[in-house]
Amino acid sequence: MKNVIISDATLRDGSHAIAHQLTKENIAEYAKAADKAGIPIVEVGHGNGLGASSVQVGLSLLSDVEMLETARENLTRSKLGIHVIPGFATVRKDLEVAFKLGVDVVRVASHCTEADVTERHISATREHGKEAYGVLMMSHMASKEVLLDEGLKMQSYGAEALIIMDSAGAYLPDDVEDRISHLVANLNIPVGFHAHNNLGMGIANSLTALKAGAQLLDGAARGFGAGAGNAQLEVLVAVLEKMGYHTGIELYPLLDAADLVEKKIMKVVPSISSSSLVSGLAGVFSAFSKHVAAAAKEYGVDPRDIFFELGRRRVVGGQEDKIVEVAMELRDGKVRGAHAE
Amino acid sequence: MKNVIISDATLRDGSHAIAHQLTKENIAEYAKAADKAGIPIVEVGHGNGLGASSVQVGLSLLSDVEMLETARENLTRSKLGIHVIPGFATVRKDLEVAFKLGVDVVRVASHCTEADVTERHISATREHGKEAYGVLMMSHMASKEVLLDEGLKMQSYGAEALIIMDSAGAYLPDDVEDRISHLVANLNIPVGFHAHNNLGMGIANSLTALKAGAQLLDGAARGFGAGAGNAQLEVLVAVLEKMGYHTGIELYPLLDAADLVEKKIMKVVPSISSSSLVSGLAGVFSAFSKHVAAAAKEYGVDPRDIFFELGRRRVVGGQEDKIVEVAMELRDGKVRGAHAE
Repeated sequence: MKNVIISDATLRDGSHAIAHQLTKENIAEYAKAADKAGIPIVEVGHGNGLGASSVQVGLSLLSDVEMLETARENLTRSKLGIHVIPGFATVRKDLEVAFKLGVDVVRVASHCTEADVTERHISATREHGKEAYGVLMMSHMASKEVLLDEGLKMQSYGAEALIIMDSAGAYLPDDVEDRISHLVANLNIPVGFHAHNNLGMGIANSLTALKAGAQLLDGAARGFGAGAGNAQLEVLVAVLEKMGYHTGIELYPLLDAADLVEKKIMKVVPSISSSSLVSGLAGVFSAFSKHVAAAAKEYGVDPRDIFFELGRRRVVGGQEDKIVEVAMELRDGKVRGAHAE
Repeated sequence: MKNVIISDATLRDGSHAIAHQLTKENIAEYAKAADKAGIPIVEVGHGNGLGASSVQVGLSLLSDVEMLETARENLTRSKLGIHVIPGFATVRKDLEVAFKLGVDVVRVASHCTEADVTERHISATREHGKEAYGVLMMSHMASKEVLLDEGLKMQSYGAEALIIMDSAGAYLPDDVEDRISHLVANLNIPVGFHAHNNLGMGIANSLTALKAGAQLLDGAARGFGAGAGNAQLEVLVAVLEKMGYHTGIELYPLLDAADLVEKKIMKVVPSISSSSLVSGLAGVFSAFSKHVAAAAKEYGVDPRDIFFELGRRRVVGGQEDKIVEVAMELRDGKVRGAHAE
């Protein structure tokens, strides 16, 4: 029986879906439920991680300190994890506070081609005796060779695992197999996979990653996350156990945790809307949906054409200004609907 | 490029999710949208098919004649399909009326071990010059050898394709591969697959069926169907086209059809609730959920234990009385929670 380490992104990636408005009660109740179910790692925080709360990407209801303290008080056997993007989180101001608050696992993340920026955060984590994972976001935008180069950097900085994220939900199983098997064959550290469900492949891609040699999987209870959501944690665990993998997580308490999220934390149950589907096909962040809808309306163009053109231009998070630019060019006939071509 | 024939169950399997209350406007608008998108076959009717409207399984808002007439008026290039379960639908009273109303494809269905009952309906369909498919429901309850025996019967009756349904959403990809490849290797007619999403595998299992040699796939727009819903049609088509298959369906009009279902026909977007997940794990009809929840409350037992025990006893649709029986036995300690053992 093969072991799989499950990392639970509910209280971090789920924050995106409720504009980072997690309450103390949400965190306390869910952390308690996850701990009872025996989930190995529970991530907590702003959707964009430590230090990210801001007018630009959205203000959290609670401070990082409040969120981490609340989670810490309610976790007895699950490890407390955080998502850390250098640029948002500084070592001195943010990370060292998190260490003092009892964080166990620090997942240091960068865009898939920018592992360089993670060196100081990974090494500081190791120096403080905490577990450090490297995370490559929007990984569908890089080839397996590039992902390996970036992963090797993270490994050299001291990362104890490498997670690749399908942030746009753009992968099909063959893409996952190709990348994960290449990373597993060439890294000395365990490899993990973080799925989104835009093409309906959240669970299937996670299983494919395991078959290709991955040892860690991320999920979120009830799929809690922006747009089409994440790999649905309780479905993932149930399917893994049915297939003979060992997660150490108990089914009924896990279902109780998922029911809690549905009834008390999420506003809308994630599903694959036309917009989420198109953003997955285009390989664009789902979180662009609201901006795209607004620009489409303002300039009288098809939002789906905007998504496909943004994908063609390889636009990433932080380049939201490109949305209006593309909408205007579509209106003026400077570009044609990308998918119609 | 390999062709795939898509059959659209939205206006038939979706009926289950709204207690068979499809309106004329629903049918007219969706049929028009599906036709515009170029969907090859559009199924219409009561969730349990022709002649099924009754107090026992639920009364349709419209008669079969009203539903089929409305659909027929709005389909110019899509074929009009119906689901027919002998026992509900008679040849003389129901099928012959449907032929006169211009039905093109008759999908004659039975429980996976009862193909014998389909002979008269399949042969009558062929005699009237219409296309006849054989359909085996709850197919996870039979081995591939049994499915082949039943499929060979349907083929001998004149069925021009065999569809196996994962009515409980219980399959994982290996199960699908095993059964479909065995059927494809041993039948002379095309094989198809009808997925449900209880284990999050609706799209992935459909792709697996194709790789194993299936040539027909069912789906429903926005996943419209009971519980966790069906394979989500627009996601399925988009993924197939991305993988190089040819469906003949246009993406944007298909997305418009899905948006129509979400905004004007469905009450709740399908998703994988704890109850749907457990019914999939147990291999029990999702449509039992409401009865199970009621019995669990009345007898003070865990609804999840009821599902697992129903699965262990291989209970199928029509045996709803077993639900209360199991609930009482759980309360009295005569059986233990099946999953806890």
